[in-house]
Amino acid sequence: MDYKSLRTPEHCLADFCLIPIGTASASVSSQIAEVQRLIEASGVKYTMHSAGTTLEGSWDRVHEVIGQAHTLLHEQGVVRIQTDIRVGSRTDKEQTAEDKVNKVKELLATGKEQTDVDKATAVYAAAEAYKAGEAFDNLKAGWA
Amino acid sequence: MDYKSLRTPEHCLADFCLIPIGTASASVSSQIAEVQRLIEASGVKYTMHSAGTTLEGSWDRVHEVIGQAHTLLHEQGVVRIQTDIRVGSRTDKEQTAEDKVNKVKELLATGKEQTDVDKATAVYAAAEAYKAGEAFDNLKAGWA
Amino acid sequence: MDYKSLRTPEHCLADFCLIPIGTASASVSSQIAEVQRLIEASGVKYTMHSAGTTLEGSWDRVHEVIGQAHTLLHEQGVVRIQTDIRVGSRTDKEQTAEDKVNKVKELLATGKEQTDVDKATAVYAAAEAYKAGEAFDNLKAGWA
Amino acid sequence: MDYKSLRTPEHCLADFCLIPIGTASASVSSQIAEVQRLIEASGVKYTMHSAGTTLEGSWDRVHEVIGQAHTLLHEQGVVRIQTDIRVGSRTDKEQTAEDKVNKVKELLATGKEQTDVDKATAVYAAAEAYKAGEAFDNLKAGWA
Repeated sequence: MDYKSLRTPEHCLADFCLIPIGTASASVSSQIAEVQRLIEASGVKYTMHSAGTTLEGSWDRVHEVIGQAHTLLHEQGVVRIQTDIRVGSRTDKEQTAEDKVNKVKELLATGKEQTDVDKATAVYAAAEAYKAGEAFDNLKAGWA
Repeated sequence: MDYKSLRTPEHCLADFCLIPIGTASASVSSQIAEVQRLIEASGVKYTMHSAGTTLEGSWDRVHEVIGQAHTLLHEQGVVRIQTDIRVGSRTDKEQTAEDKVNKVKELLATGKEQTDVDKATAVYAAAEAYKAGEAFDNLKAGWA
Repeated sequence: MDYKSLRTPEHCLADFCLIPIGTASASVSSQIAEVQRLIEASGVKYTMHSAGTTLEGSWDRVHEVIGQAHTLLHEQGVVRIQTDIRVGSRTDKEQTAEDKVNKVKELLATGKEQTDVDKATAVYAAAEAYKAGEAFDNLKAGWA
Repeated sequence: MDYKSLRTPEHCLADFCLIPIGTASASVSSQIAEVQRLIEASGVKYTMHSAGTTLEGSWDRVHEVIGQAHTLLHEQGVVRIQTDIRVGSRTDKEQTAEDKVNKVKELLATGKEQTDVDKATAVYAAAEAYKAGEAFDNLKAGWA
C-alpha cells in the first residue's frame, strides 16, 4: 500500500490540556490565558472548560495551533511542556462539540431510567457482534 | 520509607472520557447518558463537557465512580472499555473546576495583550529557576 | 437501577504519566524514580516505558497506588501534580500488557501487507454494523 | 503579538493510543498492526508498548503520521476513531524516549532509598518557589 498519499482528516475534535513544567510556580493560569489569546487569534472554533480546551477544525490546523502554543510558551521561558490531546474523527457524520453534549442531554431528558428499548439495544448489539464473528469465521473458512 | 501507610489525596479533580469498544455502532451517546445517570446518583460533584466529564471529590471516591461506570456498561454487554483520565491534586489551595475556568477568564478580561508585568514574570521565573539550579549545585558541592 | 451495589472491575490495565508542576526544575526524573520505588514496593505488576508506566491489577488497587504516588510527592514538597491515566477493562478475556504487544507483533510478523481476508473483515464489519442499525430501527419501530 | 508567525516545535515526543469505535469486535490488534505498518513506512523513529506507540520527530511530522493513521482506518471502514496523545517538547536539551527511561533506571540503580541530597533539593525548590513569589510581589509593587 502507498501510505505516503494518505491525507489527514479534514475535520476533527481535539481536546487538549497543556502543562508547563519547571515554572517555579504551581499556578499555570497565566500561561493558559496566553494560550487562549493565541487560540482566539487563530480563528479556530473552540470551547474552554476546566480540564482543557476543545478545538474543531481540520486535523492539520488544530494540531498546528497546539504546536504554536508550545512554541509561544517556550519563547516566554517555559523550557518544558507536556500536553494531553484527545482527538476524534468520524466519517459517518459531521458532529460538533455542541452536538455531542446536546445528544447526551436529550437522552438524559427523555428518561431518568434507562428504557427497555435501550436495554434491548445493548443485548441486540452484543448478539449481532457475536453473529458477525461467527459469520466472519465462515467467511474466512470459505477463503482458506 | 514505609509506602504502605501512604493515603490517597483527600481532594482531586478527575476529568474522564470513556470509550466503549466493539459496540457495533459508532454512536456512544446512549452509553454516555447511562454513565451520567450513575454519576448523578453517586452524589459526586461533576461537570459534563463535549470531551469528557469532570468529577470533584476524594481520590478514592472519584475513581470508584469511574470504575463503577466500567462495570455498569460491562453488565449491559459492552465487553471492552477504554477510559482516559486527567487527574490533578494540589496541596497549596482548594480549587474547584469552576475556580480554574474563572481565573483564566479574569486574566483574559483584564487585558487582550500580555502585559509587561506578565512578560517580566516569565523572565524572572526563568532567572530564579536558573539561580535555584546554581545555588543547588553549590549546596550539593557542600554536601559532597 | 441500584447503582450503589456496582463494584469496580476486578482486573484492568492502567497506564499513567505523572507530571509534577511548579518544581522550579524541568527535570522530573528523580520524582519518577521515587514513584517507581513506590510501585516496586506495592507488589503490583508493572512495566515502565518512556511515556508512562503500565500497572496491572484490580481497579481499586492500581488507582490506589497512583493516588499514593501523588501523596508521596506532595509530602516531598511538590504542591501540584497532574496525571494522565489510560485505563482499560474487558470481560471477554484476560489479557496482560505483554499479551497485547505480542498479538500485534504476531500480526506484523505474519504479513507485511494487509491480507485480503483482513480487508474483507473490515468491509464485512461495516456492513454488519449498518444492518444492525437498520434491524434495530425495525426493532424500535415494533416497540413504539 | 503576531501569533501567525509562530512555528511548531522542531522536535517532540508524542505517545499515542488509537481506538477504533463501532468495529463490532472488541479486538483492535489488526487495526493496531496496520497502523504499525504505516509508522514503519513513514521513517519516523518509534517505540511500541502495550499502552501506545511513542513517535519522535518534528511536531508537524509526528502529528501528520497520527492523522494518516486515522485516514487509513477510515478508508478500511472504521467510521469513528478516538486517539489519546501525550506530547512533550523541551528547549533545554535534546532527549530521546530511550534517554528518559535510562535516566530513571540510573537513578533507581544508584540508591534504593531517596538520599538526603534529594530530600534537600525538594525542600530547597519549595523555598525558592516561595521566595520567587515574594520577590515577584515586590517587583509588581515597584511596577504599579
